[in-house]
Amino acid sequence: MLKLLYTLDLTSYQKEFKQYLDQKNWIREPKNLYEPIDYIIQLSGKRIRPILTLMASDILSGTYKKAFPAALAIEVFHNFTLVHDDIMDDAPLRRGKKTVHEKWDLNRGILSGDAMLILAYQYFESYTPEIFQKLAILFSKTALEVCDGQQLDIDFETRNDVTIEEYINMIRLKTSVLVAAALKMGAIVAESSEQNANLLYEYGVNLGLAFQLQDDYLDTFGDPETFGKQVGGDIIENKKTYLYLKAMELSDEEDKQKLEFFYKQKLEDNSIKIHEIRRIFERCDIPALIQKLIHEYTEAAFDLLKNMNISELNRQKLVDFGSFLMSRDK
Amino acid sequence: MLKLLYTLDLTSYQKEFKQYLDQKNWIREPKNLYEPIDYIIQLSGKRIRPILTLMASDILSGTYKKAFPAALAIEVFHNFTLVHDDIMDDAPLRRGKKTVHEKWDLNRGILSGDAMLILAYQYFESYTPEIFQKLAILFSKTALEVCDGQQLDIDFETRNDVTIEEYINMIRLKTSVLVAAALKMGAIVAESSEQNANLLYEYGVNLGLAFQLQDDYLDTFGDPETFGKQVGGDIIENKKTYLYLKAMELSDEEDKQKLEFFYKQKLEDNSIKIHEIRRIFERCDIPALIQKLIHEYTEAAFDLLKNMNISELNRQKLVDFGSFLMSRDK
Repeated sequence: MLKLLYTLDLTSYQKEFKQYLDQKNWIREPKNLYEPIDYIIQLSGKRIRPILTLMASDILSGTYKKAFPAALAIEVFHNFTLVHDDIMDDAPLRRGKKTVHEKWDLNRGILSGDAMLILAYQYFESYTPEIFQKLAILFSKTALEVCDGQQLDIDFETRNDVTIEEYINMIRLKTSVLVAAALKMGAIVAESSEQNANLLYEYGVNLGLAFQLQDDYLDTFGDPETFGKQVGGDIIENKKTYLYLKAMELSDEEDKQKLEFFYKQKLEDNSIKIHEIRRIFERCDIPALIQKLIHEYTEAAFDLLKNMNISELNRQKLVDFGSFLMSRDK
Repeated sequence: MLKLLYTLDLTSYQKEFKQYLDQKNWIREPKNLYEPIDYIIQLSGKRIRPILTLMASDILSGTYKKAFPAALAIEVFHNFTLVHDDIMDDAPLRRGKKTVHEKWDLNRGILSGDAMLILAYQYFESYTPEIFQKLAILFSKTALEVCDGQQLDIDFETRNDVTIEEYINMIRLKTSVLVAAALKMGAIVAESSEQNANLLYEYGVNLGLAFQLQDDYLDTFGDPETFGKQVGGDIIENKKTYLYLKAMELSDEEDKQKLEFFYKQKLEDNSIKIHEIRRIFERCDIPALIQKLIHEYTEAAFDLLKNMNISELNRQKLVDFGSFLMSRDK
């Protein structure tokens, strides 16, 4: 699923993390609580976040094995957010399979999510008190920011005055800080300098923003053949992403009214709506503008690496990882 | 609300904890996430759990002020369980006021609960790494046990073969371990010996079991004038508490069939059902049997204190606290 890059072998991290996961026995008593946890963890994904933790530890200390528990905490936390978010979004499917609350019920979705959040903290327990505290403090701060981001995302649905700045802040909280924390946890486990850890965090924030904006772009302009989700999904859901907000800023009065009109509709057949919205976006040059913004955040991420106290090869690995992440078309 | 005991002044802990709470500014951005937290925390209660943390620290180190953050973590965690449990139980009211998901909606109930669980961990951050790790490890273990207990409680609703042993284990997880952890956290903050901390924990487990069984008793046989909740609530809800399980064990065939019949009904008017069930319980001498069990757990709690390395006065304080807790009629 992940490429073999010139400088670093992501598939090897991915494979080793999978082996580590497979050793875990998720199901224990009471089974009704732990079965949904096993289910959502097995549903998998690309495991980008735990790989980041392993990679950061490897780059900063030459070994990634000691980063497994922290990587697992990040992955289990991420899955907790999926289970609770799916309830809040009333989503029936996740990666083509039934969501937890659909497969079982609301109660098991809530309670198994709660248990996952607690389990995530438990994985830090194998570290020394100093490292444990650093990890837990970063984790709590990040987890709370992810909740803030989720609440802002919900708030924005019913607001008509969301600015682009507010939108960027929301995706920073909902998506980027977890990517950044995954990297910084690798640095903490590697007992690297405070400066390296913080630069890696900021690299993660910028890369996370670029990644989410890329996701917004692909959701509307991606290739249906390769994009994992339904192209046009955000338009169907009336999601006010960067594309919409920037178009509302730049389009003429007629297109603005059209946008506002369409973003109030919930339709059975969305083909005309998607076509019309795409044309408005194109008329305002939104595809080029968002690509420019993605490029800026990616470059900002790479610039931060210049101040890190690491070898040229390791810096190149982080650049390559960023380039790989941004080259995806799905 | 709490009495002034001969040996210890619980109202003073309660007052000081309230002052500590009042200093906190719960509401921050995004307001929609933190308003429900402020609401449920203000709804209050007797604050038994945080008082236990303060009392334990006071007894073991002569000061309770340093225990405030740990006490707050326990109180905020307890409120998290209330918010999520109320969703799972579909409860409209809590202490006479609307529950969070009723006053706002499901999403804000789930998300503000999640945030409270994370906030609880954050309150430990003011302690040194060693104490922080001890508190967080105990907290995670306890929080997961509370989830296990909640799941077992849900599982028991649809099972007809629950044993008394299983029931006691369920209330131990759902209620007692948090009482025990509240006490042990006070001991950890006081940097007391491992032995004292563990004995205090076991004292808490036994007292917690006695407390919950007392609650079961009062729910059916309490004085409607003084009992805070509706007397007969467990019977109306068909809750298979110790009273029901023991009666199923001891009653004759006719009463057994009556019990099984009534515990399948959801009625509009419950007066006859409550009256009949109470009479069956009385015929099997359940009130005396549960009082005996409550007494046994309370005595077991007091016995554990004998092995603690504390002054006679402090031991007496813990006995008095237990006696006070068990003398309540509401």
